[in-house]
Amino acid sequence: MQIDLNCDLGESFGAFVKGNDQGILKRITSANIACGFHSGDPQVMLKTVKLALHNGVKIGAHPGYPDLQGFGRRHIEIPPEEIYALVLYQIGALSAIVRSQGGQLSHVKPHGALYNRAAIDIDTANAIAQATADYDPGLCLYGLAGSELITAGKKAGLKTVNEVFADRTYLSDGTLTPRSQEGAVIHSDEQALAQVIRMVKEHKVVSLDGIEIDILPESICLHGDNEKALDFAEKIIEALKQAI
Amino acid sequence: MQIDLNCDLGESFGAFVKGNDQGILKRITSANIACGFHSGDPQVMLKTVKLALHNGVKIGAHPGYPDLQGFGRRHIEIPPEEIYALVLYQIGALSAIVRSQGGQLSHVKPHGALYNRAAIDIDTANAIAQATADYDPGLCLYGLAGSELITAGKKAGLKTVNEVFADRTYLSDGTLTPRSQEGAVIHSDEQALAQVIRMVKEHKVVSLDGIEIDILPESICLHGDNEKALDFAEKIIEALKQAI
Amino acid sequence: MQIDLNCDLGESFGAFVKGNDQGILKRITSANIACGFHSGDPQVMLKTVKLALHNGVKIGAHPGYPDLQGFGRRHIEIPPEEIYALVLYQIGALSAIVRSQGGQLSHVKPHGALYNRAAIDIDTANAIAQATADYDPGLCLYGLAGSELITAGKKAGLKTVNEVFADRTYLSDGTLTPRSQEGAVIHSDEQALAQVIRMVKEHKVVSLDGIEIDILPESICLHGDNEKALDFAEKIIEALKQAI
Amino acid sequence: MQIDLNCDLGESFGAFVKGNDQGILKRITSANIACGFHSGDPQVMLKTVKLALHNGVKIGAHPGYPDLQGFGRRHIEIPPEEIYALVLYQIGALSAIVRSQGGQLSHVKPHGALYNRAAIDIDTANAIAQATADYDPGLCLYGLAGSELITAGKKAGLKTVNEVFADRTYLSDGTLTPRSQEGAVIHSDEQALAQVIRMVKEHKVVSLDGIEIDILPESICLHGDNEKALDFAEKIIEALKQAI
Repeated sequence: MQIDLNCDLGESFGAFVKGNDQGILKRITSANIACGFHSGDPQVMLKTVKLALHNGVKIGAHPGYPDLQGFGRRHIEIPPEEIYALVLYQIGALSAIVRSQGGQLSHVKPHGALYNRAAIDIDTANAIAQATADYDPGLCLYGLAGSELITAGKKAGLKTVNEVFADRTYLSDGTLTPRSQEGAVIHSDEQALAQVIRMVKEHKVVSLDGIEIDILPESICLHGDNEKALDFAEKIIEALKQAI
Repeated sequence: MQIDLNCDLGESFGAFVKGNDQGILKRITSANIACGFHSGDPQVMLKTVKLALHNGVKIGAHPGYPDLQGFGRRHIEIPPEEIYALVLYQIGALSAIVRSQGGQLSHVKPHGALYNRAAIDIDTANAIAQATADYDPGLCLYGLAGSELITAGKKAGLKTVNEVFADRTYLSDGTLTPRSQEGAVIHSDEQALAQVIRMVKEHKVVSLDGIEIDILPESICLHGDNEKALDFAEKIIEALKQAI
Repeated sequence: MQIDLNCDLGESFGAFVKGNDQGILKRITSANIACGFHSGDPQVMLKTVKLALHNGVKIGAHPGYPDLQGFGRRHIEIPPEEIYALVLYQIGALSAIVRSQGGQLSHVKPHGALYNRAAIDIDTANAIAQATADYDPGLCLYGLAGSELITAGKKAGLKTVNEVFADRTYLSDGTLTPRSQEGAVIHSDEQALAQVIRMVKEHKVVSLDGIEIDILPESICLHGDNEKALDFAEKIIEALKQAI
Repeated sequence: MQIDLNCDLGESFGAFVKGNDQGILKRITSANIACGFHSGDPQVMLKTVKLALHNGVKIGAHPGYPDLQGFGRRHIEIPPEEIYALVLYQIGALSAIVRSQGGQLSHVKPHGALYNRAAIDIDTANAIAQATADYDPGLCLYGLAGSELITAGKKAGLKTVNEVFADRTYLSDGTLTPRSQEGAVIHSDEQALAQVIRMVKEHKVVSLDGIEIDILPESICLHGDNEKALDFAEKIIEALKQAI
């Protein structure tokens, strides 16, 4: 048995370089590639797609809000019909690049503020799921485990993937503690590993305020944009091997 | 026998409205839809695609330089490998929207300064043709009649469409007189009609400096962004009916 | 006695033309000029500044959210310290253009979603007021009559201008009925004129749900981006002449 | 006697971090701060201005082409009247931020492709010089030593600063060897130091093809965006101390 490890990649833009894509691609099974709205430009996308294909990693579109300056992390009030169009646009743009290199798009996972919005707002979740299904009903839809986006994906007839985080804490409703709140990020590797192992083995996680909640981990999200990302990826892979 | 009439559409952006897409779609056979770089946004693209499908008009991607402020009309020094990536990106984005509505992309025609560059620069022409062919070898490539882009398209194995202009004058090398130069635009309807009829019937056009040159008109480009566009479209259709 | 009439101008962008600036400038006393973030580009700003100076109309900076596609009308979650910086930036950009033409900036009025946010959110209001005062304490700050922005402006030591709308309805808390809500816009000229005359003569307005509220009209905002804008401006000027 | 050392700073954008501004500010006398068009955003500008003021370093505006993706390094065909407006805009934006912190703008130096264009194109050079002078005739204008921009600055009545590069080679006409050409960058510290010392002591430099040309070094440009920038800055300061 093997659990899917996914990571957001292709987050450079023009002369602005971010992340260690080459290193992280050796350790993951699914890459979510930025599509030019919150990060990524056509050339960065092409380069990242080539790297992912070379490493045999599954490729997903990672659409975000149109907000390069905010890196797609700040909420923008956008109505569902526009979400539908901008998700389609970004899926198509990446898909064309994947296709040009002889590959095939495998999944869609929204980014940042759009991801968080889709976890709790039904209309946004439906718009994303519908855009994905209308483009290709064979695509998988990644979302926060147990969130509205997973529900919307199922409703649209898509295969869904419940995603969990090793280094983020949860609130008792199953959403992530917002980054603006204290305790949002788990800085201790041991604590993060313990959380992820428990999620994988027991399908449980303890929320920031001490409530034990159910969680279904179908994929683990790794972060690739900091120094210790590679180290932590190694540790988590090792821990999972021993645990499972 | 019927000649293809094409027009650039979907050139609005957000709250900025341009053109009379609904009117012109009733008169043309092929629509070149802006893909978000020089104009168009995902919602405008979706709306324009729906209109085109409703009118039974063939849909083409109309990729341009990334330059909203300049409307893609000013040259930007971009190397061929980047042209390749940004054309793929734009084709894919529009194609996804067409596909979501049950349609199919039929052609690609570059916009503005990218179109003009591709007419004379072999590397740019090859990059566009290769991106088109790598996405879908069944697509048609539109280019200035007799230009490098047509040559590049053939070399890449694509079906090509030689495009001519009714209301623009030509230089003796077969390129369009640049807009910055006097006499670039033909303002008299009679003169424009006479030029296009002669191109269609005799495959000849007289350049701005009086030289008769060969030209193969496989499609006529109409402009849709001014008041008299509809009127002129009617006139040209009528004149062609009588002439052919 | 004369009441200030203000209008948002310079809302074109590149090849995208909006509004009838030349016509409206003959009828108003204060112009709020877009600064490039939600609309306007440097050349449009320069052209609009020249027109305003030529017509002897006072010039204000009209900073907005960085959102060209949304025309600055959709809320973006931006923290106060960033609001401070982006308002300063936009004030400075316009001010330089005014100064180059021998004029002087007279006021600041935030645009769209930023304006609405500043009416009710103290931190946003303070950030705008502080940016204005830190640039030039002699500038006036325009805001929704009786709103948090007016309070913030006074606290920052600025001269403030309470702005009212002729063709928009009010809620009982003195804020504008959101455009997304029915009854937000007054479509009858007679009703709009009656509302504005009552505001000017009696300092009262009746809210959408029938409550009479106090309002201090120090400037009336006219809209310049539709066909009947000029007509309505004429009517309001005439009505005010007779009323006052 | 001391020679001015300048460096381009504030080149981060949103979540994209570039350069080591804090380190380099301790070693230079003049900072050219990006103004949001090719890099820099309002918050980055504010932070960089505070750092520069804290270190007692003179602050200049560093306007570029509107091209974030290309980092302002690719030529865009923009007419002089638009160059004038976009330079004014960027100068004003930075100036407002400097003013808000109690500082004062001291100079203007165009960036990248705009800098290179202004070195050889008289109209572009005049547009930049005129925008600078129209904003504040007390500002200094930095340009490539002996270039059209220096001539244009003098003609506009500005104090000009002839800038030289330690680690770039020159063509025999005094322009920089384009980065696309082999030998453009001097990778040996010793060679770079020797070049700059000779420029400072003898006002001579040997071009890439071996011609000795005259050069007047009024300021030396250091690069701040790589690992060895700080080291090299130290070396050049030490070498200049011993040489002068």
